[in-house]
Amino acid sequence: MKGKFIVFEGIDGSGKTTQLKLLGDKLKGRGLPVLYTREPGGTRVGEAIREILLNPAYSDLVPRAEALLYAAARAQHVTQVIVPALAAGTIVLCDRFLDSSLAYQGFGRGIDISLLERINEPATDGLVPDMTIILEFCAEDGMDRINKSGRPIDRIERETRAFYVKVGAGYLALAGRDAGRYSVIDANRPVEQVHKDVMTAAEGVLHEIITGNSRA
Amino acid sequence: MKGKFIVFEGIDGSGKTTQLKLLGDKLKGRGLPVLYTREPGGTRVGEAIREILLNPAYSDLVPRAEALLYAAARAQHVTQVIVPALAAGTIVLCDRFLDSSLAYQGFGRGIDISLLERINEPATDGLVPDMTIILEFCAEDGMDRINKSGRPIDRIERETRAFYVKVGAGYLALAGRDAGRYSVIDANRPVEQVHKDVMTAAEGVLHEIITGNSRA
Repeated sequence: MKGKFIVFEGIDGSGKTTQLKLLGDKLKGRGLPVLYTREPGGTRVGEAIREILLNPAYSDLVPRAEALLYAAARAQHVTQVIVPALAAGTIVLCDRFLDSSLAYQGFGRGIDISLLERINEPATDGLVPDMTIILEFCAEDGMDRINKSGRPIDRIERETRAFYVKVGAGYLALAGRDAGRYSVIDANRPVEQVHKDVMTAAEGVLHEIITGNSRA
Repeated sequence: MKGKFIVFEGIDGSGKTTQLKLLGDKLKGRGLPVLYTREPGGTRVGEAIREILLNPAYSDLVPRAEALLYAAARAQHVTQVIVPALAAGTIVLCDRFLDSSLAYQGFGRGIDISLLERINEPATDGLVPDMTIILEFCAEDGMDRINKSGRPIDRIERETRAFYVKVGAGYLALAGRDAGRYSVIDANRPVEQVHKDVMTAAEGVLHEIITGNSRA
């Protein structure tokens, strides 16, 4: 029995981590094997790369180096964590994946999307999420949430509102390329309402695992 | 007036750093502007990436992530250091560049060369060295030198003799693809003899700058 790979995407402050945990808790409550993970990070090497990527001291990081660092963390993550977990039948819930690179570095910073896809070929090694949930959220409110969170603001979170608007629009453009694999959910609503829609989207792809009728 | 980009390549222990300094000192003695730099590293971000790449604690680093990390450090290095220095007319002497990735990750670890070249497209951004000096050196002796150096042995230097033999052969294969840009020098000889050949190779490409008759 093979697991399923579900990715949460959205701008900073859109509620990805909260929704990922709510879904995971629900699935665990049903006795299903769930792994939480995140990008950049998810491995020892990946967390060291994350340190560089999010450290405001590296404000001079050039966009092409940034894109390659995200891809490096992803290569380690896919090989060491995601692929083995899926092979073991686990439901992998991942906070950000390839679409973050395309939305942030591509639509946000203007790096050519096909260049980013080429960089990420060795990173994903052909792995595509079974379902990508995009939490659509107002850029202004996302920045507000980050600023009010009380924790230190990282390098990316120092970006402008205009940047986040471009990233948010980028996510919708990506979803438009392959509607079947994406579920765009309005996250400008109370947590429980958003969760209900996340659950519905996840159940669609988890049907076989939930009913235990896998034919894999 | 545009500078020149000279790269030193070879297995660990082949004497790159020594030869680079000897050449640089000679050129500086003639009043020429010289910049020493190295990969991975050469920038603040690059040195942080170097920490990950050479740290023996990350022995689990997967080859594709390793290749992407080298490329990330290179992108930062090319943009922030090498291109501006060349534009200012400086002679840039660099300890390792793209060919190290092709020799070590490609020939050494067996990653597809064309994949490495694609990963490195955004890293070099089209920059090609004016001259690449390959110090051809016995793998056994290189490992001996590293082991006797007294400093801590890094993650790469823990590789086997068989690995270094493949890397050394890889360098020669790369030189064979474009003889004009490479100068392969027998480094299994006393430092001063090797330096003489390095000087001759460098003078070929530095002719215009040395004579001050640049037509650029």
